[in-house]
Amino acid sequence: MSGKIFPTAQDAENAFYEALERGDLEGMMAVWAEDEEIVCVHPAGQRLSGQDEVRESWARIFAAGPRARVTVSQQVAIGAMMLAVHSVHENFVVEGDPRPTPTVLATNVYMRTAAGWRMIVHHASPAPAQAEPAAPTRKGPPKTLH
Amino acid sequence: MSGKIFPTAQDAENAFYEALERGDLEGMMAVWAEDEEIVCVHPAGQRLSGQDEVRESWARIFAAGPRARVTVSQQVAIGAMMLAVHSVHENFVVEGDPRPTPTVLATNVYMRTAAGWRMIVHHASPAPAQAEPAAPTRKGPPKTLH
Repeated sequence: MSGKIFPTAQDAENAFYEALERGDLEGMMAVWAEDEEIVCVHPAGQRLSGQDEVRESWARIFAAGPRARVTVSQQVAIGAMMLAVHSVHENFVVEGDPRPTPTVLATNVYMRTAAGWRMIVHHASPAPAQAEPAAPTRKGPPKTLH
Repeated sequence: MSGKIFPTAQDAENAFYEALERGDLEGMMAVWAEDEEIVCVHPAGQRLSGQDEVRESWARIFAAGPRARVTVSQQVAIGAMMLAVHSVHENFVVEGDPRPTPTVLATNVYMRTAAGWRMIVHHASPAPAQAEPAAPTRKGPPKTLH
């Protein structure tokens, strides 16, 4: 397996989306932990776990696709010593196709391993096609909870 | 807010699914961290973040629903000192309705806070309705990766 070392969870996340854009299977798998407990859910897909299932799924996706550019927005990042959780919106643009594609919501979890930060969970699901504007951030009613 | 203390991430997860079954809004919110960075994605839903959006969504769900029983299966749990990630299959049975409902895939993330373990992320998405059996666990081709 790859000996690539990502010094931060953000480095691993950047490499994940770069590999996704390039359709680069080795680059993609270099991001994942070498662990049978890894979990990947593609939009509207089953849960896949373990290196073999995850690798096969990306190989299938990269073989099928036209390449798309992807930008990540609205990241919420929560970090601790050994694990980091990023929630992001994935925004895809298919080359040569001006139509917008629905946003994909992703939860990405990274673990600090002996070989730097690696992805252990990627859970993606389509946001509702008729994307509503984000619910207004209410500053909340008075807290009268008990 | 509730002063409930969950000594382990699993205790918090148990309380989450009990509150979901009972339609118990206060019990549900007692599971979540009192943090504006919390994230919740209901099946086919937008990403919600912060206490107010998350609370409102559960209030809406509990007001609308018939109650359902839920069992959790095929848990993959990854823990570290301050964070724990559980990937589970949620299996719902609606009372009085014998038809099976599609499995929901959930990624649940818990954080150890001063008040014990609390949920910080719940990302749920429908598994494909035509549930295929889980992909066979191949023991993999010889590892000739470089």
